[in-house]
Amino acid sequence: MTKQLRHIDNSSESAAFVSGWYVVAASRDLKHGPIAVTLNGLPLVTFRDAHGQSVALLDRCSHRNAPLSAGRIVDGNIQCHYHGWRFDGAGVCRAVPGLCTEPDHPARRVPSFACRDSQGWVWVYSEPDVAPATEPYDIPCADAPEYLTIREHLEMPGPLDAVAENALDVPHTAFVHSGLFRRNEDRKPIEVVIRALDGGVEAEFIGEERPKGVVGRILAPSGGEVFHWDRFLLPSIAQVEYRLSDRSHIVTTAALTPRNATTTDLFATVAVKVPVPNAVLRTVFKPVAMRILRQDIEILRRQTEQVARFGGEEFASTEIDVLGLRIKKLLREAAAGRPGTAQEERRIKMLV
Amino acid sequence: MTKQLRHIDNSSESAAFVSGWYVVAASRDLKHGPIAVTLNGLPLVTFRDAHGQSVALLDRCSHRNAPLSAGRIVDGNIQCHYHGWRFDGAGVCRAVPGLCTEPDHPARRVPSFACRDSQGWVWVYSEPDVAPATEPYDIPCADAPEYLTIREHLEMPGPLDAVAENALDVPHTAFVHSGLFRRNEDRKPIEVVIRALDGGVEAEFIGEERPKGVVGRILAPSGGEVFHWDRFLLPSIAQVEYRLSDRSHIVTTAALTPRNATTTDLFATVAVKVPVPNAVLRTVFKPVAMRILRQDIEILRRQTEQVARFGGEEFASTEIDVLGLRIKKLLREAAAGRPGTAQEERRIKMLV
Amino acid sequence: MTKQLRHIDNSSESAAFVSGWYVVAASRDLKHGPIAVTLNGLPLVTFRDAHGQSVALLDRCSHRNAPLSAGRIVDGNIQCHYHGWRFDGAGVCRAVPGLCTEPDHPARRVPSFACRDSQGWVWVYSEPDVAPATEPYDIPCADAPEYLTIREHLEMPGPLDAVAENALDVPHTAFVHSGLFRRNEDRKPIEVVIRALDGGVEAEFIGEERPKGVVGRILAPSGGEVFHWDRFLLPSIAQVEYRLSDRSHIVTTAALTPRNATTTDLFATVAVKVPVPNAVLRTVFKPVAMRILRQDIEILRRQTEQVARFGGEEFASTEIDVLGLRIKKLLREAAAGRPGTAQEERRIKMLV
Repeated sequence: MTKQLRHIDNSSESAAFVSGWYVVAASRDLKHGPIAVTLNGLPLVTFRDAHGQSVALLDRCSHRNAPLSAGRIVDGNIQCHYHGWRFDGAGVCRAVPGLCTEPDHPARRVPSFACRDSQGWVWVYSEPDVAPATEPYDIPCADAPEYLTIREHLEMPGPLDAVAENALDVPHTAFVHSGLFRRNEDRKPIEVVIRALDGGVEAEFIGEERPKGVVGRILAPSGGEVFHWDRFLLPSIAQVEYRLSDRSHIVTTAALTPRNATTTDLFATVAVKVPVPNAVLRTVFKPVAMRILRQDIEILRRQTEQVARFGGEEFASTEIDVLGLRIKKLLREAAAGRPGTAQEERRIKMLV
Repeated sequence: MTKQLRHIDNSSESAAFVSGWYVVAASRDLKHGPIAVTLNGLPLVTFRDAHGQSVALLDRCSHRNAPLSAGRIVDGNIQCHYHGWRFDGAGVCRAVPGLCTEPDHPARRVPSFACRDSQGWVWVYSEPDVAPATEPYDIPCADAPEYLTIREHLEMPGPLDAVAENALDVPHTAFVHSGLFRRNEDRKPIEVVIRALDGGVEAEFIGEERPKGVVGRILAPSGGEVFHWDRFLLPSIAQVEYRLSDRSHIVTTAALTPRNATTTDLFATVAVKVPVPNAVLRTVFKPVAMRILRQDIEILRRQTEQVARFGGEEFASTEIDVLGLRIKKLLREAAAGRPGTAQEERRIKMLV
Repeated sequence: MTKQLRHIDNSSESAAFVSGWYVVAASRDLKHGPIAVTLNGLPLVTFRDAHGQSVALLDRCSHRNAPLSAGRIVDGNIQCHYHGWRFDGAGVCRAVPGLCTEPDHPARRVPSFACRDSQGWVWVYSEPDVAPATEPYDIPCADAPEYLTIREHLEMPGPLDAVAENALDVPHTAFVHSGLFRRNEDRKPIEVVIRALDGGVEAEFIGEERPKGVVGRILAPSGGEVFHWDRFLLPSIAQVEYRLSDRSHIVTTAALTPRNATTTDLFATVAVKVPVPNAVLRTVFKPVAMRILRQDIEILRRQTEQVARFGGEEFASTEIDVLGLRIKKLLREAAAGRPGTAQEERRIKMLV
């Protein structure tokens, strides 16, 4: 972080923040801008420059610290609403109205952040004033032929690791989403293989039956064998992939962006191929998905509130919390700049 | 406090909290439960076990810290809403749905608190995982023959000592409750005897006339001699007793439970014997009592806000603040684990 | 500050608070009182004593710390609503109802603050229990013959220095008040002379044309030469003076009172002499002035919020920020008790 950012209130940052690419908005929502977003406690503004490229700056005018997002875009530069100072997409000061001398000056620069439009989302690199060595994550099957692609942005209570664990957790579905996926009855044992990925972790569920609830009946009306993987990829991707028969395939990719220590923005891309007309799918899928998400938001809100009341987490885990501890470890090691510890493949049994 | 509770936010605890029995709910309100309550900043959940006994646990699932009070009671155990873990009244983990091995494990225990139904109230002992050497306070005249017994729960602004002093204070009645008890005119001197009780203090008012306001006229329509005692008993009892003639007797016992440093739950038991039909008494008494309580809530709210704005109390007392300083001293000494200093009987004069 | 005030929450005080006279209310609004006000985080109560003189006390009863402003005025003394204690304008305790002995006692005194009615405002000296060596600032042209005098009280977001800079700043008018004063086009260079005053600083604008917006057309319908001064005077005065032809003169004096670190009360006195009937002036002037102030409030709110989110200011200035840095320096030096550093007259060019 540059000197100019040293004052930022630490209480709003996540404990284990990992540098990298994060989604901050839907590309379709960024016409000219400006849009104010928050990445790990840092107020940013994103807009389109004169070439239509999405760009991102610190949302603080270098002059009197007004939020640039309160201003407007003039010829692809952002103009502060207070004194009209203008900045280009690189944060260079292009106008100081009233000043007889040159506007550009190092003290007047606003920190800028690498920014990309990719697969329907605006991605920002979390460190200012650097050219990242990587590109944003490539979301599988998004906008692929035969796939219906749905995008949603939700504000989730909780830190990134709690939201990621919730998104990838199987056991809670029988309670929080009772009747929609699974039930707490007639359970059968299945095997789960947990293996390390490059900068991530994957759980493969073997022997799972088609979920009996509404969701299973929509995705695989005729039943059949189920292949199911849950994945977490640094710094921000939680992914659930289901194959039910060779005709049904659904990949839900959640790009998670910590807004602050207790709120995480979830940008979901659902790519789905099923033997059901898209119009029918849209009609049925959206209400069910929104109901599931509202249920998750409610339990995450309660969990987050209670952790705050107790001043921190005090978790007990079992082996069927297959990804939670691994996600925490990946984030902690990456945030500390340490390489991930090698993890052997592990197999456990779970009643589903 | 156990290790698991060490993180609790200190700012929500009272300065001088004394271990012991505290009312947390009305017994009639605890059907199966769960009910979420807060005792000195600590979130607890109370419910009835398989035997109908009231029990109390820390309101935090040992797994992912969701509040157990968001769950439901299944066969007398409380089931967490997040992953369905179940705990019995002793805090032992009885189910981890999906897990192939035994659910009971020391790391999965939830701290439990001794709990009793007594005289219409659910009492909780403030320290986890101990068998208390004492039983809850025995409220005089509650549900006794010839007595009408009324119970009310109110949320009072202020710490326990401020609420106790307010409940037991005579001078404020001429101002905060102007016209209901006493007026700031035609005052006559009376004598007050202040004496130590075992774990408490009592003020006896000698020579007091029947209060001239509405309350006095209801309780003793034909006038007569007045006997009046105000008492505070550790850790949580504020009691006002009036005898007006041998036919009228009223004992108001307030069980005070610090919710946090600035809010105190008041659980009042009013036992009243007067030469007035109970139906008439109920009709007249409730509105007047509620008006008095609303007036006290208002002045306590203002006092609490102002103390917070100044960052602490800065009180000056006179001898007619007969119990305030003694209550603070009793709480301070008991909280520090020191035996109460012996206090000689003291007599003062007051204009009432 | 006295010992009794040592606990006051520092977070609500301004960083660079300067002792002195501050307006806290309009004289016409103080009939008997009490009125609760806040000066630099300190709750005060102002009321009129038995002689009709405005007086000010700390808004905290010495007994149980209830706000005296919740009470009422009885024979020119303020009576606490909790136990009826009464205090005169010097803070001396005049009644303790129920007490058989003398009410006056040093421990029962409430700190008092020097208070004056002057030019339509109630001014309070910021230090308790002292007789100030100075008198309140004398507002030029207020209630002078031929001048229409308008007074308004507004609550402004931001610390005193930010509100003062905003009030005295020229460049922001083309953006925040676009079209009302000036526009960001057809700019011409003018000269600004910045010179030290006794305990203050002044900027004189030379060669300025009549502002082209609505405000200019109201104040000088026939155009003509413009004389314009902006001034800041310790501890609290921001003043804008315009002469447009020898028939138009307007002096706007803002007395700024820090309520806390992020809110400043602005008490404006506008004295205006123009060749327009007063009735017309009132009709046109008020709506335009209020629109300007709402625009300033909005940008100050956004600036204040963003500074808070970043944990402090990080300003870059140019030479056309003619008074901002000088105001900060004056406040900082006076708050530290150091004499103001001598400042040479400075001339700069600005495009207006």
